[in-house]
Amino acid sequence: MKIKRVLIVGGTHGNELVGIYLIKKFEQCPQHINRSSFETLTLLGNPQAIAKCVRYIDKDLNRCFDFQDSERDRERNCYEVRLAQQINDQFGPSGQTPVDLIIDQHCSTANVGLMLILDDINLFTLNLSAYLTSIQPTLKIYSSATSGRSQDSLRSIAKYRIGIEVGSLPHGTLNADLLQKTKSLVHGILNYVEHHNNSTAMSENKFPNLYEYIESIDYPRDKEGEIGAMIHPQRQSQDYQALNPGDPIFLTFNGEVIPYEGSSSVYPIFINEAAYYEKGIAMHFTKRKHPDI
Amino acid sequence: MKIKRVLIVGGTHGNELVGIYLIKKFEQCPQHINRSSFETLTLLGNPQAIAKCVRYIDKDLNRCFDFQDSERDRERNCYEVRLAQQINDQFGPSGQTPVDLIIDQHCSTANVGLMLILDDINLFTLNLSAYLTSIQPTLKIYSSATSGRSQDSLRSIAKYRIGIEVGSLPHGTLNADLLQKTKSLVHGILNYVEHHNNSTAMSENKFPNLYEYIESIDYPRDKEGEIGAMIHPQRQSQDYQALNPGDPIFLTFNGEVIPYEGSSSVYPIFINEAAYYEKGIAMHFTKRKHPDI
Repeated sequence: MKIKRVLIVGGTHGNELVGIYLIKKFEQCPQHINRSSFETLTLLGNPQAIAKCVRYIDKDLNRCFDFQDSERDRERNCYEVRLAQQINDQFGPSGQTPVDLIIDQHCSTANVGLMLILDDINLFTLNLSAYLTSIQPTLKIYSSATSGRSQDSLRSIAKYRIGIEVGSLPHGTLNADLLQKTKSLVHGILNYVEHHNNSTAMSENKFPNLYEYIESIDYPRDKEGEIGAMIHPQRQSQDYQALNPGDPIFLTFNGEVIPYEGSSSVYPIFINEAAYYEKGIAMHFTKRKHPDI
Repeated sequence: MKIKRVLIVGGTHGNELVGIYLIKKFEQCPQHINRSSFETLTLLGNPQAIAKCVRYIDKDLNRCFDFQDSERDRERNCYEVRLAQQINDQFGPSGQTPVDLIIDQHCSTANVGLMLILDDINLFTLNLSAYLTSIQPTLKIYSSATSGRSQDSLRSIAKYRIGIEVGSLPHGTLNADLLQKTKSLVHGILNYVEHHNNSTAMSENKFPNLYEYIESIDYPRDKEGEIGAMIHPQRQSQDYQALNPGDPIFLTFNGEVIPYEGSSSVYPIFINEAAYYEKGIAMHFTKRKHPDI
């Protein structure tokens, strides 16, 4: 299937400045994102949150796109729930300008480097990953199929969805190096889509490893629900590195080491993401695997 | 003059978690901060901002303590202006429990390492700095006398004021290493005050260098006031390193390098602090000097 329309998004979270500034620059210089075989649109996801430089106003916009959610009616006064509806009415499958592919740009306080988030592993996304990895060898591929984001994220309204995550970057700040890398990755994706549409995309036979979501791990907490330990210094910033049974994972405020008690190695990512404290997530565990397509 | 009462503060900014969690731990284990020659009190500076994990509700609390400010009457409905009055009524010179020394704990997204902020350079603060540097050699001393903080900061209500700043740390996150270093520094200050009161403090003759505030530098901006460039990658995280005439300082979104056009070397600090974007501050310039007392 040819891709007719691509939407590039920044500011789904209003304090993730790299994507926001890139959208502004893309809008000033559309020739950088235009390609001959498809139309490219841009969107600043959450304008009110961007204006206040906060993640969201009432509710995380990137959890508001599950239109089957039975809670939805109760939340109709929530700014982001209404915003999600408007975005879907514009860009969703029955929208005014339905898009086939969404590229959603994010930043993380975790040391994720340059990460591609794939909600769906198929030949298109795998070939895309192989193409991008050949250009940018440090790129990591996160398979988020079972994380929930394929149901409720902004990008979930398109058939093809790609998240970009860069870090570590404090929210509310820019970083020239990470902005440049994000821009290159967006250009790489657009170039790949052009190849795909023109049937000139190479079918790669060397797929990169995937970091596949297993589960989210919370901080140890006391009876009142208060955080009782921090990420252990040996684990801080060690995203994608194997966590083996017995390895230190948390450190209490009294200096007690809490080891990982699982029975097999996992590969934590999103370690110490600021926005996840309120969600009860200290990190995601993933397994590293070679794609079996 | 003996110091009779010390106040340790965390959460003057509600999203700077290290100080907030340390205050909670100090309150659970007061024996760690009690000393025989003075009383130690604790304070969570901005409770509403802490609950929401934001820097402030209406206005930066650490700019609300200038009681001579002619704007003050107009701001009487501002949460932080009222809070500052309450804190002054409790701990200020005419308060219920006036304090002689305030230690205010902060975190920065800038790579400031472990920093002591001194609003006033005198023999007490210099000897304290020498004592602390002998314990923690990486400690940097920032002389903020002309930065405005000696008039309007929370700590300004005490005769002796010490700010602690650690980073880089994304706001809204904890970091075990930086928390441990902050705690050690607080203990070191308390121990020094004990020596001071008991007249057993050594008069050090080897004072550390000071980084003395010169001025605050904004980002380049366009006609609409929008940020037009980022910290140059060669300057990012290089706090305390000399910036020489002609050195790259900013990088525009189009890749143009903006050099430092001053005529003499300066030592930038607080480079890329998230909370300073709205204040129009990309970094502070300082001069490095040996104390001339």
